[in-house]
Amino acid sequence: VVAVAGLGLIGGSLARALTRAGWRVVGFDADGAVRRRARRARAVAEAPPSLERAVEGADVVVLAAPPAANVRLLRRLDGRGLLVTDVGSVKGPICRVAATLRGVRFVGGHPVAGNEGRGFAAGDASLFSGRAWVLTPGARTAPRDLAAVARLARAAGARPVLMRPAEHDRALAYLSHLPQLVAWALLDAARRDAVAGRHLAAAGPGFRDMTRLAHSPPALWRDVLAGNAAPVRRALRAFARALRRLQPPAPP
Amino acid sequence: VVAVAGLGLIGGSLARALTRAGWRVVGFDADGAVRRRARRARAVAEAPPSLERAVEGADVVVLAAPPAANVRLLRRLDGRGLLVTDVGSVKGPICRVAATLRGVRFVGGHPVAGNEGRGFAAGDASLFSGRAWVLTPGARTAPRDLAAVARLARAAGARPVLMRPAEHDRALAYLSHLPQLVAWALLDAARRDAVAGRHLAAAGPGFRDMTRLAHSPPALWRDVLAGNAAPVRRALRAFARALRRLQPPAPP
Repeated sequence: VVAVAGLGLIGGSLARALTRAGWRVVGFDADGAVRRRARRARAVAEAPPSLERAVEGADVVVLAAPPAANVRLLRRLDGRGLLVTDVGSVKGPICRVAATLRGVRFVGGHPVAGNEGRGFAAGDASLFSGRAWVLTPGARTAPRDLAAVARLARAAGARPVLMRPAEHDRALAYLSHLPQLVAWALLDAARRDAVAGRHLAAAGPGFRDMTRLAHSPPALWRDVLAGNAAPVRRALRAFARALRRLQPPAPP
Repeated sequence: VVAVAGLGLIGGSLARALTRAGWRVVGFDADGAVRRRARRARAVAEAPPSLERAVEGADVVVLAAPPAANVRLLRRLDGRGLLVTDVGSVKGPICRVAATLRGVRFVGGHPVAGNEGRGFAAGDASLFSGRAWVLTPGARTAPRDLAAVARLARAAGARPVLMRPAEHDRALAYLSHLPQLVAWALLDAARRDAVAGRHLAAAGPGFRDMTRLAHSPPALWRDVLAGNAAPVRRALRAFARALRRLQPPAPP
């Protein structure tokens, strides 16, 4: 039995993927309408109205709320001895808190997947198919707990990749957080230009691919960027240097 | 009859698209192996071994070599009274030259389409389908010449959009040339970082979309960026400002 707390894009997709793989999935979401929708879509076997009831008897609990909310949920679950993992895009903050808790067995996780949609309706059972799923076990993580979370990632179609939390946050600053900022800035710069802003419809497939991420929910990203501020600042500086190396020379 | 000079990704795709639409297409490429391949693929009805023979009797000539080569081809065709268009990503340089030539009827063009491949083999008859095809007629362009080039764009599946050359170059600096530089810089920054460079395989679909353009042929882009240097520099500055507005604040 796996409990998924948060049935948005990622949690909802994971519930669908694990249910499809034959797992028994109990879902929880603070929004009752989302719980009903998940039940009707048969993404979950049940969706009780409280987190505590949802995690009762779970072999693994997956925290799939935004990063800062996952940290609060993790503290709430302390003392029950549960195996807990999460799916947040930044691993430092939650892993630092987990290291201080004695009543929970935590393995950090991050499926590197997503789309520009949001919420349960945008989910897809195949979202994780072929994607990397980073796992960041702690110093006290038991091998069988790590194996159980890796099994879950594989059941969702992903490929588990082991990293330390700081290694994940540094790599993802370049591979995800910086691209997100760049997508926003490209769209913003084009929209603000009097001429380019009038001709956005003439953009080709390259521009559309590069600004697709700009349609992701900003609230979610505020958490991620705040939780990984120093690595993101370093990646921004490295990117600015890479851009200066490429800049066409000034005319003579 | 349309003559297509240059049977690379864009010229080869255009030859296929117009042949499929029932047009008679005569192709030319400086490389004999490419001419033979285009004939074997039935992308062209014929592919004579000289530009002069290829354009004989053509109602429209499409220059589909790299931008600087197109300018040379345009000068070579001066004096024949032909209707000539091109497919280059920068319109200022070729349109300025065209304005000085009296023996050629030139309408600048730019189908805003492409993929990260190169050469005839990477072409696709549907490459232009649903895309904008910018047309930049000159001050002396006859309405029926403009209409003939617009008909060609529509026959290839595209949507003609009229712009002045400077308007095109300013808009495309934001919508295509800046994204190209950004794609290179994102990939370069990630590769150079000791940790991110080791974990490129863990990148998600967002990073792949945003660096897809980085695999475009650099030689082609040198021409484009050199031909549009000032607008690209302005777009880079506007982008840097947009990025600074987004930067996460320093920690307290």
